Amino acid sequence: MIQGRSTHDMPANTSGALDRRRLLGRGLIAAGGIVLASDLAEAQPLAADQPLPDPDWSKSLGPGVASRPYGQPSHFEKDVIRRTVPWLTATQESAISFSPLQNQTGIITPNGLFFERYHAGRPTVDPAEHRLLIHGMVDRPILLTMEDIQRFPSTSRVHFIECPANGGMEWRAAQLNSLQFNHGMISCAEWTGVKLSTLLAEVGLKRDASWVLAEGADGAHMDRSLPIDKCLDDCLVVYGQNGEKLRPEQGYPLRLVVPGWQGNVNIKWLRRLEIGNQPWFTREETSQYTELMADGKARAFTWTIYPKSVVTFPCPENRMRGPGLYEIRGLAWSGKGKVARVDVSLDGGVDWMPAQLHEPVLTKALTKFTAEWLWDGKPALVQSRVTDDTGFVQPTIADLRASRGVNGIYNNNSIQTWQVKADGAVNDVQIG
Amino acid sequence: MIQGRSTHDMPANTSGALDRRRLLGRGLIAAGGIVLASDLAEAQPLAADQPLPDPDWSKSLGPGVASRPYGQPSHFEKDVIRRTVPWLTATQESAISFSPLQNQTGIITPNGLFFERYHAGRPTVDPAEHRLLIHGMVDRPILLTMEDIQRFPSTSRVHFIECPANGGMEWRAAQLNSLQFNHGMISCAEWTGVKLSTLLAEVGLKRDASWVLAEGADGAHMDRSLPIDKCLDDCLVVYGQNGEKLRPEQGYPLRLVVPGWQGNVNIKWLRRLEIGNQPWFTREETSQYTELMADGKARAFTWTIYPKSVVTFPCPENRMRGPGLYEIRGLAWSGKGKVARVDVSLDGGVDWMPAQLHEPVLTKALTKFTAEWLWDGKPALVQSRVTDDTGFVQPTIADLRASRGVNGIYNNNSIQTWQVKADGAVNDVQIG
Repeated sequence: MIQGRSTHDMPANTSGALDRRRLLGRGLIAAGGIVLASDLAEAQPLAADQPLPDPDWSKSLGPGVASRPYGQPSHFEKDVIRRTVPWLTATQESAISFSPLQNQTGIITPNGLFFERYHAGRPTVDPAEHRLLIHGMVDRPILLTMEDIQRFPSTSRVHFIECPANGGMEWRAAQLNSLQFNHGMISCAEWTGVKLSTLLAEVGLKRDASWVLAEGADGAHMDRSLPIDKCLDDCLVVYGQNGEKLRPEQGYPLRLVVPGWQGNVNIKWLRRLEIGNQPWFTREETSQYTELMADGKARAFTWTIYPKSVVTFPCPENRMRGPGLYEIRGLAWSGKGKVARVDVSLDGGVDWMPAQLHEPVLTKALTKFTAEWLWDGKPALVQSRVTDDTGFVQPTIADLRASRGVNGIYNNNSIQTWQVKADGAVNDVQIG
Repeated sequence: MIQGRSTHDMPANTSGALDRRRLLGRGLIAAGGIVLASDLAEAQPLAADQPLPDPDWSKSLGPGVASRPYGQPSHFEKDVIRRTVPWLTATQESAISFSPLQNQTGIITPNGLFFERYHAGRPTVDPAEHRLLIHGMVDRPILLTMEDIQRFPSTSRVHFIECPANGGMEWRAAQLNSLQFNHGMISCAEWTGVKLSTLLAEVGLKRDASWVLAEGADGAHMDRSLPIDKCLDDCLVVYGQNGEKLRPEQGYPLRLVVPGWQGNVNIKWLRRLEIGNQPWFTREETSQYTELMADGKARAFTWTIYPKSVVTFPCPENRMRGPGLYEIRGLAWSGKGKVARVDVSLDGGVDWMPAQLHEPVLTKALTKFTAEWLWDGKPALVQSRVTDDTGFVQPTIADLRASRGVNGIYNNNSIQTWQVKADGAVNDVQIG
């Protein structure tokens, strides 16, 4: 448990902590001797058994099974949606929608809320007509139907996909006061498809083959060059997403998944893989998706998502409601491997305390972390900092600005600071 | 690779197998010297590069981002839905819908396709009005709001839920010729909520407390007794499902998840937990959900789902399309722990060969398995058999009938046999 600004170690087992003092009720003695006036303002301790409310839904029949053969969320959750920032891009056909991370429970993003990035809108691709061409420096070019592709040996893996522009507004402190808008360009799903290495073995690579161009079937023909080593390592050609077919927004019927690499190389509506011996230097890897440094030079091919984490409670959308015991919750990830540890700070990075990681901790996937916090009602600066299993540590925004300047918008994996005010409101601030 | 009825070991690495011989193309030499006329009838090897088809969706703009703030599947997938068997129950308000396992990719069931079981239809519960009462043999009875519950320390875990009637029609060989209808009462999700042990620590158990009654807020007030040891072990009071709030069909806003135990004890629309020192012997654990044995006695409190597996390709809905190389695919699970191994047979259980398990292999969760099969076009009897990490092995239907008779409908975890005919059609058969 984190208590005020102290640096007490947190218990490995949260229910153990709760065995020692109760979360609810009035006037209870907490561990450490603190008297809690009311940890949960709304909780109703009962003097004795009292009758339960008996609303209409407890006295009537509801609709039968399969009245919705494909289910939908409760209408009470109608505000849990993807949102856009209209002024961020010139058109909505080449734009972003942000996933509501403030509402995400667990590490799986439901398909309906997976963030979107289009370059020419969302095409409606007929799977019966769709083809994947694999050609170039290969022994046997082939044209595959969706039926062909689904017959190859299949693999399922949980991976995040993040747009490298996630957090881009923070570079020049132009961020909105929102978890959703500042971090909502990341989502995570269980993907099912064929290893790209399997398809490349099928066509037979020529001796000099060292790069692959992946091209989409959308109107933009979005395309990116990828080094062959990554393609042979862990890339997937994917038709399944969280147990069902890919969603149209995610490339139905076929996309590339490049685990741990920035979103735009995970080509959607995948229609062509060309094998060559040098990068193509497409528009999307020269004019776009490069980082302009302070000296006027641009970094290109910055594919890997470096370790990043964010606290999802508290956050601007999820404020504090009076002093008492809370659980700080968040998500961490790294495109280089697994999350090894997450630390949490309540004082803007002076003192750090380890958070609890929740299983499963999977490579290049979102990982959930939590930490208990007995909030004394005083202002605080809440941060999280992830370290991955390659030893990389999430940097501060000051570190990033010092090394890269403020011209770029991509690959901001810096530590997020949430300012908790005495009234419980939470603001996005930058410090240091 | 499984070749005809041989008992060759299967390769640990399927792409390694594919390195040795190509899946596509005509007249190729397979491992073992077999000439494949055409592994994939539809595949189109190319003599040289040829132009890609250029359909309308490759030349136009689609709708912009967040044109659907909450996404939906492609309309091309409109037949991937939950289905009912109208004659199976008297009404649709007390009935089952079956999940389309024949379409499931991976181990996560998308929320829209999670199987349904209602006892009084699907109630529409207002989360602002919903309460959870915890009372009985406790020191401090409490009435919790949804806000209270979500403030407790949270846990996320992937678990299956299966109705014990899954496969019930097989006892007397009255099954339909369908994977969906014979096995579709199982689904798997990442659940998020509070450990029940945390809530029980909060109220304080009296010395003799040994049973818990869980009751739903639906019109049926569905209720079941659970032993306290299980409640303190791994049960969860859940508000999140695959990253979003519970779906109405799954108990929105609150349900119990009892990992590895039969579906009906995972009380949905949870409104009351009463602590006592003996079971309540409710209607749902006496008249219902008991197993009538051959001698007229009934087994009660048969909670645990024993190890079970099923091949999802091939199956009646997913037929074979000519001789050649295929991947047998399936799902395995055990309510006692993790899947330790799965074996596959092509001759109705005479010879068995190990299948490949896919990560992550999680406790009391669906596990994906695959095995390569070079089909010679001759009739086959395809089976899978799971062994869990406690050593339990999935039995045959003959074994189960010998020990339990044919009066019951519950807890059929027997080996499924799919008969593959020479023309590629697949039938549900019982043998032995």
